[in-house]
Amino acid sequence: MAAAGVDHPVFGALLDGGVRITSAHVTDIPIAEYVLAQVLRASVPIEAMDASTAQRQWTKHDWREVHGTRWLVIGLGSIGSAVAVRARAFGAHVTGVRRSPTGDEPVDAMVTPDDLLAAVPDADVVVLCAPATRHTIGMVDAGFLGRMAPQSLLVNVGRGQLVDEVALRRALDAGRPARAILDVAVDEPPADDSWLWDHPSVTLTAHTSAGGDGRHARAADVFAGNLASFVAGEALVDEVTPESREAPPG
Amino acid sequence: MAAAGVDHPVFGALLDGGVRITSAHVTDIPIAEYVLAQVLRASVPIEAMDASTAQRQWTKHDWREVHGTRWLVIGLGSIGSAVAVRARAFGAHVTGVRRSPTGDEPVDAMVTPDDLLAAVPDADVVVLCAPATRHTIGMVDAGFLGRMAPQSLLVNVGRGQLVDEVALRRALDAGRPARAILDVAVDEPPADDSWLWDHPSVTLTAHTSAGGDGRHARAADVFAGNLASFVAGEALVDEVTPESREAPPG
Repeated sequence: MAAAGVDHPVFGALLDGGVRITSAHVTDIPIAEYVLAQVLRASVPIEAMDASTAQRQWTKHDWREVHGTRWLVIGLGSIGSAVAVRARAFGAHVTGVRRSPTGDEPVDAMVTPDDLLAAVPDADVVVLCAPATRHTIGMVDAGFLGRMAPQSLLVNVGRGQLVDEVALRRALDAGRPARAILDVAVDEPPADDSWLWDHPSVTLTAHTSAGGDGRHARAADVFAGNLASFVAGEALVDEVTPESREAPPG
Repeated sequence: MAAAGVDHPVFGALLDGGVRITSAHVTDIPIAEYVLAQVLRASVPIEAMDASTAQRQWTKHDWREVHGTRWLVIGLGSIGSAVAVRARAFGAHVTGVRRSPTGDEPVDAMVTPDDLLAAVPDADVVVLCAPATRHTIGMVDAGFLGRMAPQSLLVNVGRGQLVDEVALRRALDAGRPARAILDVAVDEPPADDSWLWDHPSVTLTAHTSAGGDGRHARAADVFAGNLASFVAGEALVDEVTPESREAPPG
């Protein structure tokens, strides 16, 4: 099976049963495309332009450029890195958060999780790309959200459990962040009467940010390569272990 | 004054009168943001995702990734280059078109205008960033459009005069290109009864792709620098001459 993240209990059961699992890193590309599509839409007013055209009005629209914005990308694995590369091509300044930086992260600055809260107020865009582990669950709480800038965006393509949704609702009602773009939620799908479905400052999507059509071919390539290694008794690329499942962000 | 392009007759009159004009290249950033916002929206189905959420449906959406698409960028000046840098960060393959390549273009391949038509069928995205000159007016005609791929996009952030709009309407009705994203038109605004306003395969915007808020500060910087050079009797950066106004694409 191909899925983003190895926090689902099924992977623990498989590992316990002796099944070997690898990460395929095939979802980084579509998830990064989703993030940039959403952030660009929140920046360049393409829908307001459509509305003008629908009324046959030739109206100019201004926007705050993505160029020069500051991004905080939490979790610098393959997904966070793919987001960072694209954001930087727009001239954004990207700070990455990772417990043990390698020095090879494609970012402008790195901070450790201990320094994360100090970096939050400067961020125009916060992107959550971390897995759900004992280190990350609930990390975006009232203290984190209270430090976010008034016009900022929060994008969660990691796991719903990273965010305290009660605190998020209060923060959005107070206008900071200005918008939450959530591809994940604590309950998926949210209950029919959940506020997440129709809050004016929420863009909710159905855990579908990995839906790019290239993922199947990439997963097949990784599997074929690792199958050959397995048959040959060689090490598998990106093998998942019980320890790596509990690793901190990134 | 700050404006994109020096083809307007006022610039000729100013030059004739001894006024010195420079390009400021301040609009490349917002125009590239506009292009990527539009192409990403046409790729990642964020509006279909919204529609699912509005119905409280937790629905997965797939898309053809921007990664691996082939782009043909016609006009490799500052605007085309800014588009190319961003598209390549997504893993797109970018071919640039320019009469006299410098070798420094941020693209995967360069072709000259003479080889342009042969490159059209391979392009998933064609972006027109060229000025309107005697070399470029009408270049996107029935022959050009007839070579475009069925699922391709045509994006015009150059000048409306580059495109034969009668031929474009026929081409869109035939499904190739699949969509035209037009920030410019031959007549601006188009006549009230123009087909451009509401054709289902057209995204029309009001020559507003340069509307990023950073352009004013950048223009002021360029002007201040050139004013200092002018006072000192030094060469101006990016000075426009009668010859450069008639230059070919890019």
